[in-house]
Amino acid sequence: MGLGVVGGGVAQVLRERREAITALIGTPVVLRHALVRHREKPRVLSPDLLTTQPKDILYDPQVHIVVEVMGGELPALNYIRQALEAGKYVVTANKEVMAKHGPELLALARERGVDIRYEASVGGGIPLITPFRQDFLANHIAAIYAIINGTTNFILTRMAQEGQDFASALSQAQKLGYAEADPSNDIEGIDAAYKLAILATLAFHTRVRPQDVHREGISHLSARDFRYARELGYTIKLLAIGRAEEEGVQVRVHPTFLPQDRLLAKVDGVFNAVQVEGDLTGPVLFYGQGAGSQPTSSAVVADIINLAQDLAFGPRRRPPLLLEPPIPLKPMAQLRTRYYLRMSVADRPGVLAQIARVLGDNQISIASVIQKEVDEAAQTAEIVIMTHLALEEAMQRALAEMARLPKVAEVSNFVRVEG
Amino acid sequence: MGLGVVGGGVAQVLRERREAITALIGTPVVLRHALVRHREKPRVLSPDLLTTQPKDILYDPQVHIVVEVMGGELPALNYIRQALEAGKYVVTANKEVMAKHGPELLALARERGVDIRYEASVGGGIPLITPFRQDFLANHIAAIYAIINGTTNFILTRMAQEGQDFASALSQAQKLGYAEADPSNDIEGIDAAYKLAILATLAFHTRVRPQDVHREGISHLSARDFRYARELGYTIKLLAIGRAEEEGVQVRVHPTFLPQDRLLAKVDGVFNAVQVEGDLTGPVLFYGQGAGSQPTSSAVVADIINLAQDLAFGPRRRPPLLLEPPIPLKPMAQLRTRYYLRMSVADRPGVLAQIARVLGDNQISIASVIQKEVDEAAQTAEIVIMTHLALEEAMQRALAEMARLPKVAEVSNFVRVEG
Repeated sequence: MGLGVVGGGVAQVLRERREAITALIGTPVVLRHALVRHREKPRVLSPDLLTTQPKDILYDPQVHIVVEVMGGELPALNYIRQALEAGKYVVTANKEVMAKHGPELLALARERGVDIRYEASVGGGIPLITPFRQDFLANHIAAIYAIINGTTNFILTRMAQEGQDFASALSQAQKLGYAEADPSNDIEGIDAAYKLAILATLAFHTRVRPQDVHREGISHLSARDFRYARELGYTIKLLAIGRAEEEGVQVRVHPTFLPQDRLLAKVDGVFNAVQVEGDLTGPVLFYGQGAGSQPTSSAVVADIINLAQDLAFGPRRRPPLLLEPPIPLKPMAQLRTRYYLRMSVADRPGVLAQIARVLGDNQISIASVIQKEVDEAAQTAEIVIMTHLALEEAMQRALAEMARLPKVAEVSNFVRVEG
Repeated sequence: MGLGVVGGGVAQVLRERREAITALIGTPVVLRHALVRHREKPRVLSPDLLTTQPKDILYDPQVHIVVEVMGGELPALNYIRQALEAGKYVVTANKEVMAKHGPELLALARERGVDIRYEASVGGGIPLITPFRQDFLANHIAAIYAIINGTTNFILTRMAQEGQDFASALSQAQKLGYAEADPSNDIEGIDAAYKLAILATLAFHTRVRPQDVHREGISHLSARDFRYARELGYTIKLLAIGRAEEEGVQVRVHPTFLPQDRLLAKVDGVFNAVQVEGDLTGPVLFYGQGAGSQPTSSAVVADIINLAQDLAFGPRRRPPLLLEPPIPLKPMAQLRTRYYLRMSVADRPGVLAQIARVLGDNQISIASVIQKEVDEAAQTAEIVIMTHLALEEAMQRALAEMARLPKVAEVSNFVRVEG
């Protein structure tokens, strides 16, 4: 269902590798139908395989596996439900549907004695769902740190390496086809939040929904922040972070300062990486192409092969998704982390003392300060502060108080710091 | 079977996580027996679980899963065979057995309607076997580049970062428990060759045996080679390389110059990493702790949980290991790569010209040269050469010819270069 970039790739792989796939399963995988919106457009498939009617697929008793690669919540969700209810196996690449409705769909599949696989929904060609569902089962997962949106990572890499500002890096990403005309899904962290919800649900055995994820985008970052970051030994990445803490699970997507020597800091361009902290495994990192027709097709076709093997070698009921009683979400206000602050101030004696006092009053201590004269005529300077560990709610209070200081022209940016 | 570092860890995880594991399977995993050599030693397990008799395990009808964590080829291989023949599922961490006999054991398991899992045999807590058996199935794998021996990577990291020579880095590894009293299995690349044979067999769908792997160790590397490597923008790693080329599969373990900006070059200390090049996925990298009680236990217990889920939710026949008709091995002589050469020469005019002529006569062209005066008294100098792509057999011929040049005191080292 869907014959766009991913669907077309899947159809091509199934056709070009028919022999190799048959060898793996013992029987060929035959593509019966492809759901398209317009039959007239020229396609990779012969016209008699095309249909505009979902029911041609959902009610065909010869269809065993339905592959949903349309994207978007609706109507994809309805088709997936109908397919499962009709006793068909499902493969989907749909992060929005799986983030919002994954646990229900997995339960429905189990109830109907079938299965739904969704490796392609997170991280393209990087194996992630399978490791969480199989390899990490003996672990308590303490944390996930992930770069799971290639568009924003491309933009941030440009800003870091070429000193570009956000707007020109975005427009370059659009020219290269890495960003859409309306880029908000990527640059606001919505896409990353879907993927984090899927991974966190598996990692922490608790239901994490997209709306549980605290989300900040990257559009407020400036070339200047990247210069200071480099000077301080950091780089800036849009991280999706999930942590299991005593008070609850914390899930957030926001720009983050990362020490330059961390492996994650070296993940550049459209590449993705997910670092998992298991209590037995220690840190494990997965790296690769998180999007694109071929990597995504690789994951979709692997899921198809695995389901076809189940069908050929005796299907089995999948173990249920283990979801413990809901674990509370830890509110963002209770986060403890380090912070980078950049502000524009009047270049007059005493301003730093005032800022330091506001921070001190809020139990925030300063790790380092850079002060630079920026505009001699206007007599304004720029102050950059790195703090020690501090409480988010204290920092938010301090930010509001600093913005009210007469000598502070502007709190230009604040970014959380990891590691 | 086996209650050493890994076996003890597995027993502990099974006991401490009994509830979480039961929740995943729906039924508890009960540890029935542990095979030990001496019953008297104090153990993590109660004495009535200990036995010195393999048959107590192999012929107990209440044992469904046999976990082999003894290591070594014999008697482990026999016990695994007997367990499978008795219709028991097997989990093993044994790289030597799986490298030498894996395909036969997988076939035997299938024949008996059971399964053998061996995720812990390569890369400790890093998921590798499952990704190859499930996630990469739609790909043609072009190459594997792997750092899969923690001991040697620890030694090489010390040599690179602290300028230590091989002997003192090795003795430090031994003091820290990272290297054994007899370190030859690690430093000669034997351990890495076992693991490469296992991965290459899965990746290329052809039988690769340990003896097929061209193998060179790290003991000939000197602090000097690391200095030159750094100067040239490289670091030195013991790489396990598998490549599918037109003429056949190439499998080799040897020290390798890697450009410093490659992710693999940043894998330091006892960490492991495996980079897989799929034609659809592009490069995918897995990184984590490749050894140690806890990471290895994580993999063993995950295999136990997966098998127990199969038993609980309806066992299925596993798809057979797909092995195509044997693909020829590409002989080392036909390798084309770049080379680093270091030699000690008489500090007299014309010596570089002689060396260059030997290389040129063998169709080897020079990319860069460093010449340094080393010993003024003896009037010897050191010459370091990086070549362009050259044929291994031509290089071997050139090395022999250069060693015979009267002005060349010694060809001190040669190392292959990737990337």
